[in-house]
Amino acid sequence: MDLNPADARFAARLAELLPEDVLRPVAPRYLEEPRGRWQGQAGLLALPHDTEQVALLVRAARDARVGIVPYGGGTGLVSGQVKPDGAAPLLISLERMNSVRGIYPPENVMVAEAGAILADVQTAASEAGRLFPLSLAAEGSARIGGNLSTNAGGLNVLRYGNARDLCLGLEAVLPNGEVWNGLSRLRKDNTGYDLRDLLIGAEGTLGIITAASLKLAPIPAAVGTAVMVVPSPAAALELLSLAREQVAEGISAFELIHGEGLRFLTEVLPDVRQPFDDPPEWSVLIEFGLSPGLNPQEQLEALFARALTRGVASDGLIAQSETQRHELWMVREQIPEANRLIGSVSSHDISIPISVIPEFIARGREVVADLGPLRINAFGHLGDGNLHYNVFPPKGRQRAEFADLAPVVKRVVHDLVDEMDGSISAEHGIGRLKVEDLERYADPAKLSAMRAIKAALDPLGIMNPGVVLR
Amino acid sequence: MDLNPADARFAARLAELLPEDVLRPVAPRYLEEPRGRWQGQAGLLALPHDTEQVALLVRAARDARVGIVPYGGGTGLVSGQVKPDGAAPLLISLERMNSVRGIYPPENVMVAEAGAILADVQTAASEAGRLFPLSLAAEGSARIGGNLSTNAGGLNVLRYGNARDLCLGLEAVLPNGEVWNGLSRLRKDNTGYDLRDLLIGAEGTLGIITAASLKLAPIPAAVGTAVMVVPSPAAALELLSLAREQVAEGISAFELIHGEGLRFLTEVLPDVRQPFDDPPEWSVLIEFGLSPGLNPQEQLEALFARALTRGVASDGLIAQSETQRHELWMVREQIPEANRLIGSVSSHDISIPISVIPEFIARGREVVADLGPLRINAFGHLGDGNLHYNVFPPKGRQRAEFADLAPVVKRVVHDLVDEMDGSISAEHGIGRLKVEDLERYADPAKLSAMRAIKAALDPLGIMNPGVVLR
Repeated sequence: MDLNPADARFAARLAELLPEDVLRPVAPRYLEEPRGRWQGQAGLLALPHDTEQVALLVRAARDARVGIVPYGGGTGLVSGQVKPDGAAPLLISLERMNSVRGIYPPENVMVAEAGAILADVQTAASEAGRLFPLSLAAEGSARIGGNLSTNAGGLNVLRYGNARDLCLGLEAVLPNGEVWNGLSRLRKDNTGYDLRDLLIGAEGTLGIITAASLKLAPIPAAVGTAVMVVPSPAAALELLSLAREQVAEGISAFELIHGEGLRFLTEVLPDVRQPFDDPPEWSVLIEFGLSPGLNPQEQLEALFARALTRGVASDGLIAQSETQRHELWMVREQIPEANRLIGSVSSHDISIPISVIPEFIARGREVVADLGPLRINAFGHLGDGNLHYNVFPPKGRQRAEFADLAPVVKRVVHDLVDEMDGSISAEHGIGRLKVEDLERYADPAKLSAMRAIKAALDPLGIMNPGVVLR
Repeated sequence: MDLNPADARFAARLAELLPEDVLRPVAPRYLEEPRGRWQGQAGLLALPHDTEQVALLVRAARDARVGIVPYGGGTGLVSGQVKPDGAAPLLISLERMNSVRGIYPPENVMVAEAGAILADVQTAASEAGRLFPLSLAAEGSARIGGNLSTNAGGLNVLRYGNARDLCLGLEAVLPNGEVWNGLSRLRKDNTGYDLRDLLIGAEGTLGIITAASLKLAPIPAAVGTAVMVVPSPAAALELLSLAREQVAEGISAFELIHGEGLRFLTEVLPDVRQPFDDPPEWSVLIEFGLSPGLNPQEQLEALFARALTRGVASDGLIAQSETQRHELWMVREQIPEANRLIGSVSSHDISIPISVIPEFIARGREVVADLGPLRINAFGHLGDGNLHYNVFPPKGRQRAEFADLAPVVKRVVHDLVDEMDGSISAEHGIGRLKVEDLERYADPAKLSAMRAIKAALDPLGIMNPGVVLR
């Protein structure tokens, strides 16, 4: 069933239904995506003021069989926010629906509209004496609706879970134009199928999230940060176990850092201050966020002492000030930028069962070495089993020289991930970028159930066409 | 589309497909449910040994249009495990599929088959030095597949979440007879729609869960338990906030106890040792489970001191031994038995946004008082906003005398819950018992999406017919 373009006739129809200021010329930024792989198109851009206007837009698109691209902050890394071909879609940006509708500190709940910028949600929580734990590089421009639609991950998943775990309920416009009022503030509600978790992670293909009730957490009384040098990824996992024995849920971050990433920093971002003169091959950034009565620095010192005794750490630095904490985090946070400047042949957002990560790193090195003299930077959220596994040209060579190799690298890495029961998309989603990978690696029964659900809820296929499922 | 009965012809067909010992005579216990509201029927009982046999059974039922009732431990409280009318179904009990397939302590993951008894899952975790936190009254006979199908709650939800939050992945037979191999051990996996959370809580209407990968947690280093007398439900909430400030995630339980429940104990279970001679109108059972370096008894003492100062507690008892801890818990755990012995007119498993619970309790008292001289025992998982709100005849009168009033009581309580944005089923599910309530109170857009999903995944309507949706 072909879709129709969002053309002048459709625009005229919308103009009858909606206030004049809802429809806007399509600025170029709405048609770009951060990795520059695809150029989007849009027949029309709508900036609705409220949920009822979103519903009107969806119903009009349904009646006219016009495709819709729901647009959050545009920061997604798998191109779910652009439609590069076929009939030009209606782009609905939630940016005007950005208010916090309510904060309930005794409940640890906030209700925010989908267009609220993640950093603003964090600030609103903080002003109420609470923590909204979702934290990721794009938080200054990503919007919470997009974070939920893509089930965003980030730095605090180990402790607080991903976006799905931080959401109690949704308000959404379904593909038939009906508004689902599901803004529950309840921790327990067993009344029927879990639509919330179905829309979360559906990347706009089953409806448009317009608001969400979000879980807040207490702000840890004190935070401490350290970097510890470990002899191997296996030792890093033992260190994680030791840390868990010691502070249980108190581990806020446990990030694996690879020597290659530190050498990249030296190469392209020499101003970033590194904790060790000689970049260690493997190190871990650890953050403890503890309740009153426990001193994070003392706890990190105790952990380091135990780790030294057991031979799972050989050197370490515990931040003694906020400035030092910030410096340690800057190292971790600047690695993606260094990667970008070096230019990867192929990058992969993967997860692996935690206990086989050392084996994955070893086997990955072999299968990639078979393809040529490539460099690997494997780093990321070790506590979640989530690695950003990026493959680079040898020093002094350009990614362009290896363009032909890119699909081969991706294939051998994803094949290995699949063989080891991992995921080819840990936190970024499927978007358009990984539609083929999903078809290749997903369980067939799951894929056919997904197609049945999509056909049932969106029989005309108007919602973010071509994303997740073809 | 009418279903056919699981009759002799269908039995003959199954006998061709499956080993002889899979089909069994239907013992009466499979046709009962704990509250005795309905008498089930079953044409056939199958006890499959493995997932492939479950799939064979489902495909045969699909081909013959025979309804299936998936059977776990039979402990559900909303009659989802019985089919009292219409064509006699095939009952599939998972009891033989009860093995733990694997434990991965470094990952905090266990893979267990659906028929594993919850207490056995807890024991297996404990033997591996880990905690499987799901804990509920029926844990000695409930099976994990049923716990997941109903998204069971229980005592530890405040800290660890409900069954859904404790599951990483599922293996399930879908209504078309396909096996979904989704036993992920990953913490992060953004590859398509969340089938897991759709099957969890679907009460067997979208497929049969055959195995699950479960999240384990570290065992808290030390546990402490106290009962504190509070002047009001509002004070109990303030006490919860104080406790959160102090130990954050370290609160393992926060249970509201009503004086009515204590008086019931005195009346019908006088051997249960109560902490106070004079049953306080409101008290709270608090449990802290803390990491090394924090002493739970000291922390409870500190909390009590702060609570006294602020006037949110007036008396308290901190357990000084395991025996005392056990005694405090016995009070909480015997209240449901006391309720049963007294005999409720109507009982309700509800949740309310936490901050309006005091208002709900006050307004509930008024609307119930308007109906007659009834007694109310409102107790339960205050930290989750989940109350068991049970209404009883006056002392010396029998529930039978108030049978006509039961639906009226239920209606006014549920109406109030709905008005205050609560849920009419917090942790027990819909089953058959609350199908009408779901139709009355659920959001219409959600209900129609649920029906569309059911029709898409189970077009013949063979999976647990009549449960959740008619």
